[in-house]
Amino acid sequence: MRLTILTIICTLFILPVIAQVDNSYNLMPAPSSIVKNGERFSITGQFRVAITGNPDARLYAEASRFIRRVSEKTGIFLDKQGYVKQGDSSVKAPLLLRVKRPGKLVLNENEAYILEIHAQQAIVTAETDLGAIHALETLMQLISADEKGYYYPGLLIIDSPRFAWRGILLDVALHFMPIDVIKRTLDGMAAVKMNVLHLHLCNDQGFRVESKVFPQLQQLSSDGVYFTQENIKEIIRYAGQRGIRIVPEFVVPAHTTAILCAFPELASVKRSYTLQRYFGVFDPVLDPTNEKVYPFLDKLFTEMAGLFPDQYFHIGGDENTGKDWENTPHIKAFMKEKGMKTFMELQTYFNKRILPIVKKNGKTMMGWDEILQPGVPKDIIIQSWRGKDAFYESIKKGYQAILSNGYYIDLIQPAEFHYLNDPLPKNIHLSLEEEKRVLGGEATMWSEHVTPETVDSRIWPRTAAIAERLWSPQEVTDVNDMYRRLDFVSLELDGMGLKHISYKLPLLRKLSNGYDTKTLQTLVDVIEPLKIYERNQGDTMYTVFSPYTKLADVATPDQQLPRQFSSLVDSFLKTRSGDLEKKIREQLTAWKENHAAFLQLLPSSPILEEGKILSENLSRIATSGLEALAFIHQRDTADYEWVSQNMAITERAKEQGGRCDLQVIKPIQKLIKAAGGNEDPHVETQGTQTFVLDKIQIKRTTHPGYGQ
Amino acid sequence: MRLTILTIICTLFILPVIAQVDNSYNLMPAPSSIVKNGERFSITGQFRVAITGNPDARLYAEASRFIRRVSEKTGIFLDKQGYVKQGDSSVKAPLLLRVKRPGKLVLNENEAYILEIHAQQAIVTAETDLGAIHALETLMQLISADEKGYYYPGLLIIDSPRFAWRGILLDVALHFMPIDVIKRTLDGMAAVKMNVLHLHLCNDQGFRVESKVFPQLQQLSSDGVYFTQENIKEIIRYAGQRGIRIVPEFVVPAHTTAILCAFPELASVKRSYTLQRYFGVFDPVLDPTNEKVYPFLDKLFTEMAGLFPDQYFHIGGDENTGKDWENTPHIKAFMKEKGMKTFMELQTYFNKRILPIVKKNGKTMMGWDEILQPGVPKDIIIQSWRGKDAFYESIKKGYQAILSNGYYIDLIQPAEFHYLNDPLPKNIHLSLEEEKRVLGGEATMWSEHVTPETVDSRIWPRTAAIAERLWSPQEVTDVNDMYRRLDFVSLELDGMGLKHISYKLPLLRKLSNGYDTKTLQTLVDVIEPLKIYERNQGDTMYTVFSPYTKLADVATPDQQLPRQFSSLVDSFLKTRSGDLEKKIREQLTAWKENHAAFLQLLPSSPILEEGKILSENLSRIATSGLEALAFIHQRDTADYEWVSQNMAITERAKEQGGRCDLQVIKPIQKLIKAAGGNEDPHVETQGTQTFVLDKIQIKRTTHPGYGQ
Repeated sequence: MRLTILTIICTLFILPVIAQVDNSYNLMPAPSSIVKNGERFSITGQFRVAITGNPDARLYAEASRFIRRVSEKTGIFLDKQGYVKQGDSSVKAPLLLRVKRPGKLVLNENEAYILEIHAQQAIVTAETDLGAIHALETLMQLISADEKGYYYPGLLIIDSPRFAWRGILLDVALHFMPIDVIKRTLDGMAAVKMNVLHLHLCNDQGFRVESKVFPQLQQLSSDGVYFTQENIKEIIRYAGQRGIRIVPEFVVPAHTTAILCAFPELASVKRSYTLQRYFGVFDPVLDPTNEKVYPFLDKLFTEMAGLFPDQYFHIGGDENTGKDWENTPHIKAFMKEKGMKTFMELQTYFNKRILPIVKKNGKTMMGWDEILQPGVPKDIIIQSWRGKDAFYESIKKGYQAILSNGYYIDLIQPAEFHYLNDPLPKNIHLSLEEEKRVLGGEATMWSEHVTPETVDSRIWPRTAAIAERLWSPQEVTDVNDMYRRLDFVSLELDGMGLKHISYKLPLLRKLSNGYDTKTLQTLVDVIEPLKIYERNQGDTMYTVFSPYTKLADVATPDQQLPRQFSSLVDSFLKTRSGDLEKKIREQLTAWKENHAAFLQLLPSSPILEEGKILSENLSRIATSGLEALAFIHQRDTADYEWVSQNMAITERAKEQGGRCDLQVIKPIQKLIKAAGGNEDPHVETQGTQTFVLDKIQIKRTTHPGYGQ
Repeated sequence: MRLTILTIICTLFILPVIAQVDNSYNLMPAPSSIVKNGERFSITGQFRVAITGNPDARLYAEASRFIRRVSEKTGIFLDKQGYVKQGDSSVKAPLLLRVKRPGKLVLNENEAYILEIHAQQAIVTAETDLGAIHALETLMQLISADEKGYYYPGLLIIDSPRFAWRGILLDVALHFMPIDVIKRTLDGMAAVKMNVLHLHLCNDQGFRVESKVFPQLQQLSSDGVYFTQENIKEIIRYAGQRGIRIVPEFVVPAHTTAILCAFPELASVKRSYTLQRYFGVFDPVLDPTNEKVYPFLDKLFTEMAGLFPDQYFHIGGDENTGKDWENTPHIKAFMKEKGMKTFMELQTYFNKRILPIVKKNGKTMMGWDEILQPGVPKDIIIQSWRGKDAFYESIKKGYQAILSNGYYIDLIQPAEFHYLNDPLPKNIHLSLEEEKRVLGGEATMWSEHVTPETVDSRIWPRTAAIAERLWSPQEVTDVNDMYRRLDFVSLELDGMGLKHISYKLPLLRKLSNGYDTKTLQTLVDVIEPLKIYERNQGDTMYTVFSPYTKLADVATPDQQLPRQFSSLVDSFLKTRSGDLEKKIREQLTAWKENHAAFLQLLPSSPILEEGKILSENLSRIATSGLEALAFIHQRDTADYEWVSQNMAITERAKEQGGRCDLQVIKPIQKLIKAAGGNEDPHVETQGTQTFVLDKIQIKRTTHPGYGQ
């Protein structure tokens, strides 16, 4: 009876969005609807999975992986079911997956599922196995425990994604990311129900995929680190099992130094090309007037279109400085002849020559903002990075688009910023048809300043908040609740094998030159790498050979402790609770005293010298905070001079050290102001700007010419 | 002048072994000779590497890797030398590598080097680049620091290995180990100057390498996890760059269930074969009377001999129960016809059929103890696992052999045990010629109870002690100094990307179900997994599907804290120092109080239930220890009854929990006995036996038949 009703619900696919979502289960992304039934499903050694219906074979692999994950999490031996096999179809199995048809790895495929848990059985019902796979991830997050052991809470979840395109761009060109990084990224994506991994495969610093047609590309332009075609197939298979599409990007006509190292004859300017070692925007660009360029791209793209089965093929198109075109006589002449006034018109000409190549391979062309120029056909997809205005403009013009502006996770902004960045916010008035053209979004992990060791800490856990924005109902916007669940999911992800937490301790030990990392940990917990593009001032501080094993690499974005300390101070200032005051005092005292210990580290760890200023400033502002706390405790009011002096100390503490800055200045300023009766003293602000959440200018330094 | 003398020394290759080795630099393995000169070579941004002479190309790759490692360790930007290239040959470079000829990856190749460091320059002189590569690892370990920054101490090191074969056997059959595990194992091996990675590629649980001749092997017998031939080539290249040989093992005629799953017609007994899920010794075995067996092995071994370039080809040969031969009429008849009395004679017949196959591929055959039977030719290599007597017997009989007995790192014995296990101890009297036949040794990492996550913690750091035994002069045997340097090298190895320390915290968080791991850490620091073959009682507790994410997996062999606590107690009992007493009291109090916190973990982490008995016993024996300390403090003598009672408590605390046992019982027993005036009370000992260091019986349960 229950099953029959479920089947009807599933068939009709009425997925009601309940405004008030119950998130008490730490689920992330939050599902569309949860109804509890008070029952308790015990997870025991008898736990088994059965599958009925007609799923794709991937579901058997995923269900088998699920069994092992449950066993590893609970420690329960589930050895009797090593693999979930075709014959495992008992409708009375403890966990039953019922799937109507194989899911296709295409945009807008049905990913919905219904999960019903009762005391004796959990049942997943889904149109496609992609929905069932999402349900398995929900079941991983739902594992609960009490005195009696592990269990599932009884409930009914009805769930489906808000957007069809929920992706991560992973740049493997600037710093190469080996296949185990790709695999664990895919594991993390699957855990938070993301479905597109966009691989940025070449740039000025390297060409990262084997070409059998033009082997010079990997031979001359990769420093020996690239994916073989066998690797790519393995990635596609691994992603496909998790319901994730792989979208390749081959950026043209600019950001092509790597291609030009192998084929200098295709360049606009004749130079001796070598791989770019710096990061930024450079002038080298393909010559659109050279008729040899198009057969080359035809062969290359045809080969790559065959390697990557996805419908979408990304041709980049961004950050052409135009200088190598405007300064080259024969190109200038070509533009004049064709009546082109700007180099962007020439780029549109180039794009129009590329489009048929992509199309004849049965693919849909995709590119960054810049490819959207007058006259570009409507059947391309725009990936928007430069701003919301351009994004909605392209939607209104009739293009399908995905949003990346606001999801630049390489810029070290807090999860909150990305979380509140809605591709379809309530205040944007679009027609239903226009809304449909908003396909979703992609977090972008550009790899200038990350290595295989640190990259996870820049992707996770913040990307889980983006995943929720793209999956969950629009109404799910409670930032505090997001952070509560993010702390949980972060631990789950690290437990699955991602390294965003666990990479830290080995690096702290390395930096501390010993087993005891307490002192350095105390400092690192309250600093973050400089945000936006500040870390690499003038794009000249770092190269591909630089050490990414320093303070700014062990410091992570959106630190937990400053967030917690800030809300501790807020609560205290509201309640004046003695308990909270004690906690704040203990914390400030630890920070104050840490500097002496830090100084003792330096002789054996000169690498930490660059953090001295941070440690000293932390000690100073903690001292100010303690003094402020004393005023407040004695119900005394600090005079204007004391407040000004101490506010100035906190302002000076905004100074960077080791390309990081302190994160606890604001709450300490609040304490200082409160000590002064909340009067705002005149202090000249300096140092790190407090960035405004909803308007970040993405600005990059353009290098003066080719190379350095 | 200096260079000339060095050159002469190098040419003559007089490598004096200095009896008293100066280990003040934390080098592991300790070099043959160190002479300090008091100078100081500053490591600055000007640091460069140059190479002269005629090395193999691998040295350029290794020198480039070295530059990045120095940069990552010191934080110094060495971006100007991205790669060390052919042109980098200035004899005035800060680090100059002078190499006479390319090293060959063969047994007994010259691996010696001389390293001379003065204020302005460090010079490495070596016959082959293999020696220079070892020197680079010495230089990594030598990096020092003080107030003025990073530097090298001025010195002269003359160094060469004692044994030519210094290996690790890594079993990738029982639990598969993906390529990133192999790569980081190779990195660790290179760091401690080991030069052979022996890959155990197939067994009853799986066949782990792609065969193009018999693709059924990986298709039917690997569960989809195996190395492609491209993977193998990548492993060989990666190892070769580090001067490490890859020796493949294809075990026959027993341990061949995986082969028989794909080719059941080659089995001695007709059964339906499926991959073995349990671990242990099983009856399935190839049929040596079946003439189809030999062409099959000919084709397979010929393919694999082509894939693996090393001179040695390991055919296993161990642990044949003989039952499937003795119980099969046509095999029985064959033995009778040939006049064979035991199944081992039949195995020798089989080996003699295999040997020409190996030989015609230009390889030297290698096998375990068991292949050494009367009539086996002398040009095979014996790998000795069953005992020293057999080892020296084979040497005396004229065979070359490597020692693995005593290096079974899967058995969770302390580094000290392996360290003192000398392949050529002083009390063995062999002729010079016989001594030469002792090629070296191999640590064996059998993978029954390890996964890619935990395997490092079973290999490292203990294998570094084995590496020292096989490299350093015989006289280097100071166990305390070994442990001091092992703690250092362990940190270095983890900092390089090995996981033996860093895997722990994520697993502790997983087991604690939260960020705070202090309570569990306190317990885990004093427990070790059950030793020898006790963990998997009767070989029936675990299968390939079992969860290895539990207490016994986060507990590591040869724990640091029990070792430190034990010597703390010894020092205290000798000195009765108040400081030491205080430290002991603090530690015992922490253990005593930890149990209450542990109990609070259980409702949210039922997986820890199995550790309750350990936590409780730790609290109990710590209480006994505290009472003993009180007696000692008051210069009181505990009565016989108190001593007996408390000794009984400690004896009962030997009980296992979660397949682990407590490691701090002995020092607490010493405190109890000291409190009682060192009188030894009568207590019935029980539980875990204290194993004797020099005589470990390796015994494995033989499964009653085929499978379970």
